Amino acid sequence: MNEINWSKSEKVVARRAFDTAYKRECDATIAKLKEMIVKATKPEHIWGIHDYLTEQLKQINRNHDYRYSILIFVFARLFQEGWLKLTDLEGLAEDKIEEIEKWLKRC
Amino acid sequence: MNEINWSKSEKVVARRAFDTAYKRECDATIAKLKEMIVKATKPEHIWGIHDYLTEQLKQINRNHDYRYSILIFVFARLFQEGWLKLTDLEGLAEDKIEEIEKWLKRC
Repeated sequence: MNEINWSKSEKVVARRAFDTAYKRECDATIAKLKEMIVKATKPEHIWGIHDYLTEQLKQINRNHDYRYSILIFVFARLFQEGWLKLTDLEGLAEDKIEEIEKWLKRC
Repeated sequence: MNEINWSKSEKVVARRAFDTAYKRECDATIAKLKEMIVKATKPEHIWGIHDYLTEQLKQINRNHDYRYSILIFVFARLFQEGWLKLTDLEGLAEDKIEEIEKWLKRC
């Protein structure tokens, strides 16, 4: 991937989109946790919840790495996993959208 | 601690007491989890729940090691932490109860 420059206004859009995706993923995790905990009655359920959370936090950490050098790839992944929508990226220049689409084809 | 022999009937009492304590500790963990998840609204709450669970599972694993060679010590600890009651140990010979009491004084 060639080096990509982010204008000041694009950085604002990017940060907002990133934070929105992060919140969506965390909200989904909380919703799933609630569902699992409500049903928890046996000791093994505690281990199941812990395993789920450990895996989930690993994925959230992996997904939400805000560095401009890898942001196109991060956005492509967030997009593919459903945490980001095209409308969240309104305000980015066409080259960024094209790069994200390129990465999406590779994912 | 001198080597302690467990009769067949004492092994039955010990296993039942151990399982009861395990269930009490797991039930308390589930109850605490339910309390935490009701209040969870922000991403950092997920990390808080994960940290709590990691610590809790470590403690449960440490507390519930069923080996006759260390069972007196395990019972003393479960007793001290409130997961075991004297009535759970009815059926054990006096020497076991005395050993548990000795360990309790050291805890």
